[in-house]
Amino acid sequence: MSPNDTYTELKKKMREVALLASSQSVLYWDREANLPPKGSDHRADQLAQLNRLMHDWFVDPKVGDMLSTIEAGDLLKDPESEPAVNCREWRRLYDREVKLPGDFVEEFTRVTSKAANVWAEARKKSDFKLFQPHLEKIVELCRQKADFIGYTTERYDALLDEFEPGAKVSEVEAAFEDLRKELVTLIAKIREAPKKPDVGILKRPWNVDRQRIFVEMVAIAMGYDFEAGRLDEAVHPMCTPMGPYDTRIFSRYYPEDLAEGLTGVMHEAGHALYDQSHPRPELWGTPLDESASLAIHESQSRTWENIVGRSRQFWVYFFPQLKRLFREETAGVKLDDFYAAMNWVSPSYIRVEADEATYNLHIMLRFELERAMLDGDLKVADVPGEWNRRFKDYFGLEVDKDSNGCLQDVHWSDGSLGYFPTYALGNMFAAQFWVQAQKDVPGVEDDFARGEFGRLLKWLSENIHDQGMKYTGAKLCEKVTGQPVSHRSLIDYLYAKYEPIYGIRR
Amino acid sequence: MSPNDTYTELKKKMREVALLASSQSVLYWDREANLPPKGSDHRADQLAQLNRLMHDWFVDPKVGDMLSTIEAGDLLKDPESEPAVNCREWRRLYDREVKLPGDFVEEFTRVTSKAANVWAEARKKSDFKLFQPHLEKIVELCRQKADFIGYTTERYDALLDEFEPGAKVSEVEAAFEDLRKELVTLIAKIREAPKKPDVGILKRPWNVDRQRIFVEMVAIAMGYDFEAGRLDEAVHPMCTPMGPYDTRIFSRYYPEDLAEGLTGVMHEAGHALYDQSHPRPELWGTPLDESASLAIHESQSRTWENIVGRSRQFWVYFFPQLKRLFREETAGVKLDDFYAAMNWVSPSYIRVEADEATYNLHIMLRFELERAMLDGDLKVADVPGEWNRRFKDYFGLEVDKDSNGCLQDVHWSDGSLGYFPTYALGNMFAAQFWVQAQKDVPGVEDDFARGEFGRLLKWLSENIHDQGMKYTGAKLCEKVTGQPVSHRSLIDYLYAKYEPIYGIRR
Repeated sequence: MSPNDTYTELKKKMREVALLASSQSVLYWDREANLPPKGSDHRADQLAQLNRLMHDWFVDPKVGDMLSTIEAGDLLKDPESEPAVNCREWRRLYDREVKLPGDFVEEFTRVTSKAANVWAEARKKSDFKLFQPHLEKIVELCRQKADFIGYTTERYDALLDEFEPGAKVSEVEAAFEDLRKELVTLIAKIREAPKKPDVGILKRPWNVDRQRIFVEMVAIAMGYDFEAGRLDEAVHPMCTPMGPYDTRIFSRYYPEDLAEGLTGVMHEAGHALYDQSHPRPELWGTPLDESASLAIHESQSRTWENIVGRSRQFWVYFFPQLKRLFREETAGVKLDDFYAAMNWVSPSYIRVEADEATYNLHIMLRFELERAMLDGDLKVADVPGEWNRRFKDYFGLEVDKDSNGCLQDVHWSDGSLGYFPTYALGNMFAAQFWVQAQKDVPGVEDDFARGEFGRLLKWLSENIHDQGMKYTGAKLCEKVTGQPVSHRSLIDYLYAKYEPIYGIRR
Repeated sequence: MSPNDTYTELKKKMREVALLASSQSVLYWDREANLPPKGSDHRADQLAQLNRLMHDWFVDPKVGDMLSTIEAGDLLKDPESEPAVNCREWRRLYDREVKLPGDFVEEFTRVTSKAANVWAEARKKSDFKLFQPHLEKIVELCRQKADFIGYTTERYDALLDEFEPGAKVSEVEAAFEDLRKELVTLIAKIREAPKKPDVGILKRPWNVDRQRIFVEMVAIAMGYDFEAGRLDEAVHPMCTPMGPYDTRIFSRYYPEDLAEGLTGVMHEAGHALYDQSHPRPELWGTPLDESASLAIHESQSRTWENIVGRSRQFWVYFFPQLKRLFREETAGVKLDDFYAAMNWVSPSYIRVEADEATYNLHIMLRFELERAMLDGDLKVADVPGEWNRRFKDYFGLEVDKDSNGCLQDVHWSDGSLGYFPTYALGNMFAAQFWVQAQKDVPGVEDDFARGEFGRLLKWLSENIHDQGMKYTGAKLCEKVTGQPVSHRSLIDYLYAKYEPIYGIRR
């Protein structure tokens, strides 16, 4: 068979794997949205079976043979062509996946799916002991996974590569070090600032039904397509793609906090727009239709949540609309005070509720603990103590209970060690992309003041989404912005915003 | 390998098929509950893939070999033992399924899944032309299916056997003929009856939120386990088992009709109790844990919906509770008048809303049309005309629009030709079982007046549910009641109820 025909056949085979993965996504989504409590063990078995199947299909030696046949021809000579991008990624994934035994893959899914329920329970009760044996198993499985995959310097590299292809722990560490120094200075300045927003404006009773109306208006304005998605409520905000025209988001609302529900939906809808902004069903299920990396995906959610949703221009348009829905709650509140409140900076326990300045310190803490667990320097039993010690050190706060500490995130329960760094990388990418978007689309920020986000979405779609996995995250950043990944744009952006609000100077 | 070890291995293999089927059920359920409109084509592809996979696993020649190995030993000598029941059913299914080409199975699922959406649209618009080409394809596929499977007398036998193993069209036809004669007489007596219930009692504005509270109370009293299921709303009432501890039901509520929402939930919860009354996770995924037939399954839902839910004793307990929730709506209404209204008999368009007397005529009409379509005597294009002609003949009513006629049921769109007769058979079984239950559990009906249904459920569980597929539906009826399937108990039951309400005499 010619390389061309082989490619066509391989693409078909890989789309079968993607189709099965999309069915699995429905089961994951349903687990969060609908699963009756007694059904959780069976769901774990269902998920494990599907993962095992996908793995078996993927590591079929025929896939390796087909890749070799294609690679031997000249179909891939243009490295940015569809076959070249797809085959490069399939090769990378194949070489990685083939090292994992099928039984291990099945066991990993079963253990993590069961752990997810225990974690939810442990978090509710703030009882780390309940979760500890599960986390011990998960850390052990993650260590095994890294050993199966292999690494040169440390286990963490093997795990990070799953989420951020091509990234190295040493580079992440260096980028984080620069970022940390700047953030510590910025946060200190804000702590001592002469002006402080009145965050109490946001911490009032906000009718949840009307919050839902407001965030739906915002999601629609962003371009979120409700005919190709849903907005539901669950314990954890989340975006789940499950087909070319089915990308659903979860949010949660707090009756006494307006910001959480809104920014949560803007964040998740930002992820969803990656799929929705320009669907290409003919490419669906291939790397060219997937995101370059999780950090790049996160850059999109953070763009909408923060750069758009906490901008003054956004509120020029939406504050009057908010006022119409919440007359009493906003009586006497001025736009600039509201905008300032949306940009309140203060150390707090919960990562997903953190402001743009302190957020990245949350990530660094997790990154450090994960590395220590994987290296064997930190026992799982000692995680709460170590978390709390470092938290005091970074944030100046005593953690009052583990649900406000090491039990707050879902990620460890689902086995995603190595994932957290992509969040901070995503914040850096977002700021870098934003600098470029403003250059390429003059006046883009002023669009927001008219409730117009189409030019921004088009720019993101063409420059980021449509690139698929053509480049790694780091390479895409360079292609789009001409600069390597760096903390500078993020720090510039934060000072530009916080200087007038807090009356501080860089 | 010994027959014993082979059986253990086969059981494991078959449970893998069942596990995958249970994942598919989640996707079906989600399609009804949650799917965004643009996602329907992709969902059809997902369902088709899973069906294809299950088929391929099932018809793996190894399964045939394993069955032969087991059959050659003496493991199956007790025909009611676990291995004997399971292997008999697997053999039957294997021999049936192996005749269907994999591509056909995949195509069948894809066509019907897409048709389901078109049908819903056609029904909403009452536009048969929209649905017609899909139904034409489906009838053609059903004819092919029957031809693949084979039959001696007519195609319908091959399809009926899927839903009601061992049943023959000729037997069904004979049973229906007896039933029809009696029903026509009964309905004529009721039409001319000296007394008529005031059905207006039920056709008032009933607050839907409070309807939900009431039906949940009823479902809980029946024994429905909300920790192992859910009650949601969708266009079609439905029960979907998706694991040993996850059996969900859909209902719908009408703001001006109390009976539909309530009886719908009692019906579906009746199905769900088949799974929930006595879970046997160690048998899950084997025929011994499945229902004898769809008619037997239906006998359970009809027992709860009609024999319990339309009994006077049930309302002795629940009418006072209803009164507490709906003071104004029930002001001045007496128990006996309410009970009589719940047993209102009158020809009407919609099968699922039909009373116990006319319901079975709806089934017969569908049975006749399906046979004619399969035999080629009736073109799909002529279905609306033929439906309406017969409906006038049986019910004395002119069908005003196809959504009240041939477009009302979901079954044809999902390719389930051959399914309808099980509904009428189920009604006959239910009445026969009820006669026996009253003998075996003296005073069981009086339990209802105290809101107690545990003794009934235990009897159903032991005599029906726990038998799994040990016997065919017809055989189980004989085992439990000592009688072959017959219309007599149903007719006796209906006269016993309607004589005092309508002042008629047999």
